[in-house]
Amino acid sequence: MKRRVLLVVCDGLGDRPIDELSGQTPLQAASKKNLDWFADRGATGLLDLISPGIRPGSDTAHLALFGYDPFTVYTGRGPFEAAGVGMEMRPGDVALRCNFATVGEDGLLVDRRAGRIKEGTDQIARDLDGMVLEDVRVRFKEGTEHRAALMLRGDGLDPRITDGDPHDIGAPVPPVRATVPEAERTASVVNEFMARAKDVLADHPVNLDRARQDLPPANVILPRGAGRFPDIPLLGDRWGLRFAAIAGVTLIRGICRSVGMELLEVRGATGGLDTDMKAKMEAAVKALNEYDVVVVHVKAPDIAAHDGQPKLKVEVIGRIDDSLSVVRQSFKEDWILGLTADHSTPCETGDHSGDPVPLLVYGAGVRRDQTTTFDESAAAAGGWGRLRGVDLMPLLLDLANRTTKFGA
Amino acid sequence: MKRRVLLVVCDGLGDRPIDELSGQTPLQAASKKNLDWFADRGATGLLDLISPGIRPGSDTAHLALFGYDPFTVYTGRGPFEAAGVGMEMRPGDVALRCNFATVGEDGLLVDRRAGRIKEGTDQIARDLDGMVLEDVRVRFKEGTEHRAALMLRGDGLDPRITDGDPHDIGAPVPPVRATVPEAERTASVVNEFMARAKDVLADHPVNLDRARQDLPPANVILPRGAGRFPDIPLLGDRWGLRFAAIAGVTLIRGICRSVGMELLEVRGATGGLDTDMKAKMEAAVKALNEYDVVVVHVKAPDIAAHDGQPKLKVEVIGRIDDSLSVVRQSFKEDWILGLTADHSTPCETGDHSGDPVPLLVYGAGVRRDQTTTFDESAAAAGGWGRLRGVDLMPLLLDLANRTTKFGA
Repeated sequence: MKRRVLLVVCDGLGDRPIDELSGQTPLQAASKKNLDWFADRGATGLLDLISPGIRPGSDTAHLALFGYDPFTVYTGRGPFEAAGVGMEMRPGDVALRCNFATVGEDGLLVDRRAGRIKEGTDQIARDLDGMVLEDVRVRFKEGTEHRAALMLRGDGLDPRITDGDPHDIGAPVPPVRATVPEAERTASVVNEFMARAKDVLADHPVNLDRARQDLPPANVILPRGAGRFPDIPLLGDRWGLRFAAIAGVTLIRGICRSVGMELLEVRGATGGLDTDMKAKMEAAVKALNEYDVVVVHVKAPDIAAHDGQPKLKVEVIGRIDDSLSVVRQSFKEDWILGLTADHSTPCETGDHSGDPVPLLVYGAGVRRDQTTTFDESAAAAGGWGRLRGVDLMPLLLDLANRTTKFGA
Repeated sequence: MKRRVLLVVCDGLGDRPIDELSGQTPLQAASKKNLDWFADRGATGLLDLISPGIRPGSDTAHLALFGYDPFTVYTGRGPFEAAGVGMEMRPGDVALRCNFATVGEDGLLVDRRAGRIKEGTDQIARDLDGMVLEDVRVRFKEGTEHRAALMLRGDGLDPRITDGDPHDIGAPVPPVRATVPEAERTASVVNEFMARAKDVLADHPVNLDRARQDLPPANVILPRGAGRFPDIPLLGDRWGLRFAAIAGVTLIRGICRSVGMELLEVRGATGGLDTDMKAKMEAAVKALNEYDVVVVHVKAPDIAAHDGQPKLKVEVIGRIDDSLSVVRQSFKEDWILGLTADHSTPCETGDHSGDPVPLLVYGAGVRRDQTTTFDESAAAAGGWGRLRGVDLMPLLLDLANRTTKFGA
């Protein structure tokens, strides 16, 4: 029987023992009757997204979860951010993530997010889009709030340049520098763009409006995370299957688009703590009628952990568990459920760690193991053992009876 | 919180079930209340130093434990022996481990260690050091007892040569041969050195002295284990941390030096069965005030196993356990303890085996697992699962919150 796969990625789900939770991890402390139900009847294990001890980014981790070797396809987050805001990219294009930001008259950084500007970034983006600098076509597009993406298309581009972002308040905006000679031209184009953008922004109507409202102006563009768009084989071509994704976060949306997934829009899916998880699960379940593989990304646990709030993380995991009722109640015999994380985000550090993440797989054909609950420690004794992120997609598609044989 | 790492490497700790120990391994049979205490409160697992079933050398295993791929950096033990006796090496230098040995008048090997010569090897070494043969600078330096190192520096050196060591008593000393054409010159230089050394040794005052005491003369130098010193990134540069090591064995000292660890000297640390383990642990604990990572190497279990003495190995492990009281009693909240072996040395074979070694990690941030004791079989069910040697350093440094992120 050919099966379909639902893969739920809970961003930053894994954690470490926390004193405030009596030495439990948030996943251990959470109310999770559905997760435990699936774990009891399925099999769990541990996943090293990259390799043991290596701290993954959300981008490198998702590439691995989708079956790509990040060491081959990843040069920086820029291209995936650009794809996430809807830019059409081609292999060889170089792209950077940008912030609309505010500098003072002295040129020093005042606000990295221009007061979390919401209105008018589309107008500004239109005025910055379409320049041709040194024969390089420059595209610029706004994302949500203060976020935007810059894309360069032309010959001989190289992403090995530093960020044009001081990162720290009170610092001057640094020019972009090439870290290898091959990237000199790319650095020069980005610097030229930053200078022209500053001119355009200086007396832009959107900023005049903001001045009237006493809001910080978006008077500078800060680019960072340059990367080259890889010549990446699309999932559909590789597996001959239809893939869809539900994700609110721009970077994750960009990765999903870049590997050829259809992005499904769900009302109430925000990519924030307030996201409507149930709506996402309902949409995913519905999408399984049309697609062979549906990925649902939930950002909330990572947000709670980045903020160092274990109890909030516990609560958020409880909400994910609640939303899984939708999956459990409508579970079909030809479904495979995979649930895991893109990395651990210990509340202790508030940042990604190299700790492995728990993995749960449930469905017909799955060899049931001894684990009856779903958490980091239980999963260490699970039937999948310890796997690498890049192995997950072949494993799920094999359980779905969708893979081809290597050899005869 | 940034943590510091204490890594204890018990040489040859792993073993196989032994009839004499009622089917237990020496680690299972040993008194080890501290090891069990740490295992109970931390997590254990199995480590394949290289990969399953591959028998590691102490050198390749330690390179892996320090995070290096031995297939990339290792061509032979010579360079690490040379570094261990204090030679300053550069990438591209070729070095060999040497023995002072005794041949009879017929040229056949009588004693591979020249009666475990102790006195005068420094005088001999001075007389053999500094030759220039075929434009190759030749350095020679004594180690402990019958041990010495030979280093070649020059253009176009290649370590792919055979040993100038018959290994068997009663055999003639063979000339060194190139195993590839590129190594012809290197072989020729080593042969020339061996010939000149023989001349120098023939009537050397040290040997005249030995003759008077009726001791076998050191009348030949046997070189073996040629290798090229790798262009190895130093640990300090790679991680931005300070590393120190406490080790008595020349080869291990050489590896520690080669990867940029500071070697700490401890009175009573011999690298033998009589080593003062408590003094080593006390020194390590003290060094954690100054260094981010401190490695302690204990050779004794390997010696007992090489001698095929299970009960001695049991006793030695008990002494290691005793010495760990020092660590347990002074354990700080910002420490991570890792304890493992560089390989198994089953008493049955008296040599290294490919059996995985048990790993123990304890400290804040470690996900406690179900294992309550520390041995080869218990560790197979431990929370770390089964890892590779090369993954250990990233894993420990990640728990110490000292790593950088791959991606965004």
